[in-house]
Amino acid sequence: MQFTFRPRAAHLLLAIDLVGTALFAAEGASTAVEARLDLLGMLVLAFVTALGGGIVRDLLIGDIPPGAIRDWHYAAVALASGAAVFLLRAHTSGIDHWLILTLDAAGLSFFAISGASKALEFKLNPLLATMMGGITGVGGGTIRDLLIGQVPKVLRSDVYAAAALFGAAITVLCLRLKVNGVVASGLGITGCFVLRILAVYRHWNLPGAG
Amino acid sequence: MQFTFRPRAAHLLLAIDLVGTALFAAEGASTAVEARLDLLGMLVLAFVTALGGGIVRDLLIGDIPPGAIRDWHYAAVALASGAAVFLLRAHTSGIDHWLILTLDAAGLSFFAISGASKALEFKLNPLLATMMGGITGVGGGTIRDLLIGQVPKVLRSDVYAAAALFGAAITVLCLRLKVNGVVASGLGITGCFVLRILAVYRHWNLPGAG
Amino acid sequence: MQFTFRPRAAHLLLAIDLVGTALFAAEGASTAVEARLDLLGMLVLAFVTALGGGIVRDLLIGDIPPGAIRDWHYAAVALASGAAVFLLRAHTSGIDHWLILTLDAAGLSFFAISGASKALEFKLNPLLATMMGGITGVGGGTIRDLLIGQVPKVLRSDVYAAAALFGAAITVLCLRLKVNGVVASGLGITGCFVLRILAVYRHWNLPGAG
Repeated sequence: MQFTFRPRAAHLLLAIDLVGTALFAAEGASTAVEARLDLLGMLVLAFVTALGGGIVRDLLIGDIPPGAIRDWHYAAVALASGAAVFLLRAHTSGIDHWLILTLDAAGLSFFAISGASKALEFKLNPLLATMMGGITGVGGGTIRDLLIGQVPKVLRSDVYAAAALFGAAITVLCLRLKVNGVVASGLGITGCFVLRILAVYRHWNLPGAG
Repeated sequence: MQFTFRPRAAHLLLAIDLVGTALFAAEGASTAVEARLDLLGMLVLAFVTALGGGIVRDLLIGDIPPGAIRDWHYAAVALASGAAVFLLRAHTSGIDHWLILTLDAAGLSFFAISGASKALEFKLNPLLATMMGGITGVGGGTIRDLLIGQVPKVLRSDVYAAAALFGAAITVLCLRLKVNGVVASGLGITGCFVLRILAVYRHWNLPGAG
Repeated sequence: MQFTFRPRAAHLLLAIDLVGTALFAAEGASTAVEARLDLLGMLVLAFVTALGGGIVRDLLIGDIPPGAIRDWHYAAVALASGAAVFLLRAHTSGIDHWLILTLDAAGLSFFAISGASKALEFKLNPLLATMMGGITGVGGGTIRDLLIGQVPKVLRSDVYAAAALFGAAITVLCLRLKVNGVVASGLGITGCFVLRILAVYRHWNLPGAG
């Protein structure tokens, strides 16, 4: 999902964005290993997990063709990351659970904040811009879960989408209060990341409907 | 699902449209209770059920960003309705089955007719405009069913999507015959509503494929 | 899935395209018979299977409203084909397995190559244009499988999406090398078709992730 901050921070942010893409793609490909898909299925899940949320957001806010379709770097990074998981799949079982969780929380934070910022640039209302941040963060994983026949994890499990929305809301609020863009992004990313990690560590859950 | 009739009927129709949104959102949230989702899952299902059909229609006819994304009232009504179901969830089990069915049939009728009318305004062919009415009416429920891992009810069960298409077809036909817009809408809404209620009451079904 | 070659080959190609639409629609409707859907469910699956891939591609490349929504011929052909399957459903069980497979491979080839060509016309990068060919070929079947609650076949099974991508890649490569459009299409269609048939005949599979 594309950061579109124009000024000098742009290169750093593009790099961060591509790192997030690579990470989510690797997660998608790993899911494919569990679901016993073939190589192509892995690449599809890598692409969808990494870029699906941003593509849906771009369709909804009217940035068409979506950035991930217009700019080949995103697809290339996602597919390369998926291919790497395929090649290394015999060696991934020992990776530390908390490392994956931390990296995933970082990716979620970046995507949510970049999604919300972009939606604001496209003149969306703050409520909808916050939701677009949430969609950017969890949309790809939702489509992936549907493709492998599972109820999307974000609908059931702990504070995941809520963290994305929380971070997005912080950034949207800051930007509306004319806070500097980099500060607004930093605060939102931090808020999402910390809430997500705390929620896992302390087993927080939203109130159930039952 | 935005009514876009320009003239003086517009306020009434907007009100009707928002009532339909609230109703469908409440149904979505109720489904989330059954599926044992958490609060956020309820809000997601409320939003998707109420606004998913209109969003898909708007993407397909080229009204981008979709009305439900551009105008925050729709999201606010859907989320408020979902939150109300959450708060009142202990007290909903006694609600009369036929009341729900009647309200749902009303919502279906409004959505189908507004969807078909809007598609005609966007210069779609009558066949496709009728289909857009059907998508507006049942699209949200279809996405909701997919998200909770069920085969969409509209594909299997009794005369539901068929009623939406029937009402949409009446309105499209009337509008092509230069019938006044309010009359065309009234006839379509009535046709859809009556067919839906009759079908439930008499256990009508479409011929099966088996 | 619209062929958009302007010159005199256009009529032939439109005819081929509509034949592909009819074939994929018939397959979708047949799936509905197996899933015990009603008549409307059959028509929905016929439409979605035949036109879903092209609609998603058009949304992604920015041709909105999608060709299949703008031009009623596609919907009419898909629905007529679905209705024919409904009427003839008692007589379809004896159809030769290899005939279906061959016709399906032909439809896949046409859709993949037309999708890739159209994406190039819309200035997509060769990598993404090839992917758009794949989406055009297998997108409809993927949506159909999701609607009936199955993990999409293309994610699991033998060389199907891979054949679509292979043919699309040939055409994209040829067009970038300034090969004549009809020749580029012919080579791509042949490549996809031959690979698909060979893969079934020889039980080829992509390397698994297991």
